[in-house]
Amino acid sequence: MPTVTIKDIARLAEVNPATVSKALRGLPGKVAPETRARIEAIARELGYRPNAVAATLRTRRSNLIGVIVPDLGNPLFGPIVQGLERRLRDAGWMSIVVQTPAEAEAKREVVTALANRQVAGFVITSAESDDPMLEAAEQCKLPVVLVNRGLDERRFSSVVNDDRESVRLALEHLASLGHRRLAHIAGPTSSSTGRARRQAFEAMVRKLPGASGVIEDTPAFTRDAGFDAMRRILERGEAQRPTAVFAGNDLIAVGAIDALRQAGLRVPQDVSVVGHNDMPLVDMIDPPLTTVRVPTDRMSDHATELLLEHLASPGLSPMQRILTPVLVVRGSTARPAR
Amino acid sequence: MPTVTIKDIARLAEVNPATVSKALRGLPGKVAPETRARIEAIARELGYRPNAVAATLRTRRSNLIGVIVPDLGNPLFGPIVQGLERRLRDAGWMSIVVQTPAEAEAKREVVTALANRQVAGFVITSAESDDPMLEAAEQCKLPVVLVNRGLDERRFSSVVNDDRESVRLALEHLASLGHRRLAHIAGPTSSSTGRARRQAFEAMVRKLPGASGVIEDTPAFTRDAGFDAMRRILERGEAQRPTAVFAGNDLIAVGAIDALRQAGLRVPQDVSVVGHNDMPLVDMIDPPLTTVRVPTDRMSDHATELLLEHLASPGLSPMQRILTPVLVVRGSTARPAR
Repeated sequence: MPTVTIKDIARLAEVNPATVSKALRGLPGKVAPETRARIEAIARELGYRPNAVAATLRTRRSNLIGVIVPDLGNPLFGPIVQGLERRLRDAGWMSIVVQTPAEAEAKREVVTALANRQVAGFVITSAESDDPMLEAAEQCKLPVVLVNRGLDERRFSSVVNDDRESVRLALEHLASLGHRRLAHIAGPTSSSTGRARRQAFEAMVRKLPGASGVIEDTPAFTRDAGFDAMRRILERGEAQRPTAVFAGNDLIAVGAIDALRQAGLRVPQDVSVVGHNDMPLVDMIDPPLTTVRVPTDRMSDHATELLLEHLASPGLSPMQRILTPVLVVRGSTARPAR
Repeated sequence: MPTVTIKDIARLAEVNPATVSKALRGLPGKVAPETRARIEAIARELGYRPNAVAATLRTRRSNLIGVIVPDLGNPLFGPIVQGLERRLRDAGWMSIVVQTPAEAEAKREVVTALANRQVAGFVITSAESDDPMLEAAEQCKLPVVLVNRGLDERRFSSVVNDDRESVRLALEHLASLGHRRLAHIAGPTSSSTGRARRQAFEAMVRKLPGASGVIEDTPAFTRDAGFDAMRRILERGEAQRPTAVFAGNDLIAVGAIDALRQAGLRVPQDVSVVGHNDMPLVDMIDPPLTTVRVPTDRMSDHATELLLEHLASPGLSPMQRILTPVLVVRGSTARPAR
């Protein structure tokens, strides 16, 4: 099959090739709508396939947005990425999602590889502190919006959850039930969310009359990490056992419940557990998880809005949007037995 | 900062520019390893950024693989995509993940947009029958491997679960517990998995002495769809109520449990429920879900292997790999009360 060219389409549409070129590159307002429709119909019929790489070289732009997520196995990211994908598509952009590799060099490469392929901008979820991705993103001078991280990262616009408010909601709920011996299983301190929730827990426990709080750190926001951390807390002996645990996220909470159950303890009768995120299915686990809901839908909305603003106005200053979480009380918390 | 060129690197590395070009484009065996290492170190130090789009135009290849998934909100796909990403990365390829849009025209566009950006091949998970993506993929003549669908699609290599075996495992388990009044909440018949499980259920119930089986169809593999379908089954009245339900996937099973609970029925005492996939967290739901485990790890392994074979040998005939599922018995199934 011979390659269909702009000229073939121009001849059939009875316009000049420049008009075809404009119409098929989708630049608005330069070709009359009827003409554009006619050109598109003919292009479709002939099976015209634009050479997008060549087109990108000419215009130095594309309709691609790179969305970078750390862990597609974490059910939190499904809804966030889906929301971004849908909203960016509505605005005419196509999202390509890349999972963050573990090594620093590979992280840098992901960003530069996408930048070299002329993505027009980035949404980076859950970047870590001093993340090589952020340095690489800054160097390529493309619009970047951080999601779920980055309040301490003023180089870029970001959409974050109000983590202090999350901790306040969780601790106020536990305190009102009568809990005073508290524990926090913290997410990695290399993440701004892990660090912020950890700091807020420390500060707020100190102000709560009669309360004590132990903190156990984890290397990752995973179920296995939560299991191991809860085991370490239980190994300190019954005298030091907390009556309530606030977990850095829902996966950590699920792992903590695994460990409590394995140790013969009941949730919530012996130990209450609060998660964070309200990821899919935690309403169905046994017991249904009390958790702090992160507004993933609004996160995607705001991130898309910020990115579109940056794409429209290069050089715009970074903006921060802080979203307010909500406590969802379910079956994993109750009054302490002792 | 002035742009660093191949010539700058060549001067510092004391080689000719063609050697730099070969080394940085990663073609193996044409530059001595020490020389390549020296060139790479200098390129890194100078912050050399190859124009990948221009490079792609010259070589007509890239190191990108397009991975297309239907629903990033379905926790089944996290592990599959993570496995693909890791294995492709080990082999030197970078995965870009795109979620399938709903409209036929947009589906075609996703494939052609990626093909036009010179991805070297595709992994397409859960393509539907007569999927416009498959037609588009065939037209662009790039290697394609289908995952989790496609046994009836001999144009492409595929890695699928043995759905007949899945249904046999589920029904044999329910029959051995004493269930004879069965129901199947089928996934969409536009998907090969939905169709295959539905057909196997029909055929096997017919052969089971004394058994009856009703089938309720769903428009999607989602929790909401499972809820609605279970409600429709319950609306037929108590006399027709099944004692056991085999759901098209775990999300449908979770929705069915929601509906049973809302109707005041207990799982498994009043109705047993079996899911399909063993997606993350279904071991933690109340009651823990009996389900058929799809070997997602081996799916990713086989899909990567097939794709690498096709990339290495263009024109290779399509190959089918069928993986055997495993029954995981948990708390959502028991002997029927009546």
